[in-house]
Amino acid sequence: MENKRPLILISNDDGFQAKGINELIRYVSDLGDIVVMAPDGPRSGQSSAITVHDPVRYQLVRRVSGLTIYKCSGTPTDCIKLSKMTVLERKPDLLLSGINHGENAGINAIYSGTMGAVIEGCLNSIPSIGFSVDNHSLDADFVHCAETIRRIIRKTLQEGLPQNICLNVNFPAEGEIKGVRICRQTKGVWGHEWEKQTHPRGFDFFWLTGDFENKEPECEDTDNWAFHNGYASITPTSVDLTAYEMIDKLKAWNL
Amino acid sequence: MENKRPLILISNDDGFQAKGINELIRYVSDLGDIVVMAPDGPRSGQSSAITVHDPVRYQLVRRVSGLTIYKCSGTPTDCIKLSKMTVLERKPDLLLSGINHGENAGINAIYSGTMGAVIEGCLNSIPSIGFSVDNHSLDADFVHCAETIRRIIRKTLQEGLPQNICLNVNFPAEGEIKGVRICRQTKGVWGHEWEKQTHPRGFDFFWLTGDFENKEPECEDTDNWAFHNGYASITPTSVDLTAYEMIDKLKAWNL
Repeated sequence: MENKRPLILISNDDGFQAKGINELIRYVSDLGDIVVMAPDGPRSGQSSAITVHDPVRYQLVRRVSGLTIYKCSGTPTDCIKLSKMTVLERKPDLLLSGINHGENAGINAIYSGTMGAVIEGCLNSIPSIGFSVDNHSLDADFVHCAETIRRIIRKTLQEGLPQNICLNVNFPAEGEIKGVRICRQTKGVWGHEWEKQTHPRGFDFFWLTGDFENKEPECEDTDNWAFHNGYASITPTSVDLTAYEMIDKLKAWNL
Repeated sequence: MENKRPLILISNDDGFQAKGINELIRYVSDLGDIVVMAPDGPRSGQSSAITVHDPVRYQLVRRVSGLTIYKCSGTPTDCIKLSKMTVLERKPDLLLSGINHGENAGINAIYSGTMGAVIEGCLNSIPSIGFSVDNHSLDADFVHCAETIRRIIRKTLQEGLPQNICLNVNFPAEGEIKGVRICRQTKGVWGHEWEKQTHPRGFDFFWLTGDFENKEPECEDTDNWAFHNGYASITPTSVDLTAYEMIDKLKAWNL
C-alpha cells in the first residue's frame, strides 16, 4: 500500500535566504516532499515579470531528506517556469509562495512577486497559495501563522482548487489569529508615492514610497479589514482577468 | 465657449524610441493634448513590476505644441506612477499604452508591461487602453490599426469606462481589419519555455522562449481567435482579481 507524499514546490520574492521562506519550509516539512526554487536575492514588487533579455540560471543550495533547495537568478515567475522544465520530475501537488515579509492584500497583490509565483503556478494548473505577513522586518515573527498555514494547506491538498483560481493569504503582524475570513480584494489607491532627492550632479531622482489609501476601511468583507483586525484573510484570486460584466456593454458600443 | 482638449497620457513597454509608440502618438495627436512618459529602453515582460530597490528618474525629451515627451528609467508601472506626481497638472482623461510590438492577448496580458501601464492607469481611475499588434518586428507596420484605434479612443472618451475595468486591444499583424470583436481572455499555457545553453565555464543557463498552447483555439469569443482571424480584439480587463464565485465555496471549507 503506497502512501505517496505530496510534492510541494515553494518559492517567494524575498529570496531563498529570507526568514519567511525558511519558516514556511519548517512549518510544512512533514506534509510532503519539498522542492524550493527561489530567487537568489530580493525581488519585491516584481509582479508577474519575466526575464526576457537576459539568460537565467539556477544552482543547488542544499539537498537533505525530503527537501531540495535551489536558488535562481530570475524573477519569482521565472523560478516557477524554470523549475517546471528542470528540477521537477512531476507536476507538484501544491505550490506555496512566501511567507512574504509584508502584506500583499488589496491592490498590492497586483505588484507582488509573491503572488507572481502563485499566479504562475495557477496558470500551470497547480493548486497555488501565497502567504504574507503584515510585517516588513527582516526578523519578522511568523510562528503565530503556522497552525493556520498548515490547516489551509491540508484542506487545499484534500479539496483541490478550481482551474484559474489561486489563494492569497494575509496575516496580521502579530498576536493570536482570531480566525480565517474569506475576503475580496480591498479597493484603494496609493498616494504620495515618491520621495524626491537631488543627485550631487544636480538632477532629481525619486524613491518609491507612499501611503495606501483604503477606499473602504469599514468593509468587513475585504482582506485589508481582516488582517488589520486580527484575522487571517484568504482572497480567492483569478488569473482570468476578463471583466465579463463589461462584454455586453462594449458590444453595445457598436465599434 | 471653452472647448478644452482631452489630456492623454501615453506610455508603453518597448521604450520611448520604439516605432509603435511614435505611430500611436501620430494617430491620436489631433484628439487631445499628449504627455508621454515612457521607459528609456525596452521593458518587455515587466508586468506590473515596480522599482523598489533603486531610485527612478525622468528627463524631458521633446516639447512641441500639444505634445510633451519624457523618458523614464523605471518600469511601465513606474512611468504612470511618476507622471502622476511630477509632470501631469491634472488627471488625464485617457491613458494609452503601446502600440506594442507583439500581441498581449490571452494570458500574455499577465506578463505584459504594456498592460502593466494600463492596469496602473485603471487603478488611478483613468480610462485606460492598451494596444498591441501581433508582430514583434522593430519595423512592424501599424497603419492598418490606425482607424480602429481612433474609433475606440473616441468612443471611450465619450462613454468612459467603469472603475476597475480597462481595455486590452490586440490587432492582427497585417491586412485590413475585418471588424472589432469584444472578447474574453483565451485559456492556454506556455510550453517548452526555456532553451538551455552552456557557459564557457561549464554551467548551464537558460533563455526564455516557448510556444503558447491555446487550449481553446476554436472558441470564437476569445481574443486569440479574433486577432488570428483578421479582427481587432477588445478584452475588457479587471483589476479586481477576486474570484467571487469561489468565496462561498471557501467559506464552506470551515477553516
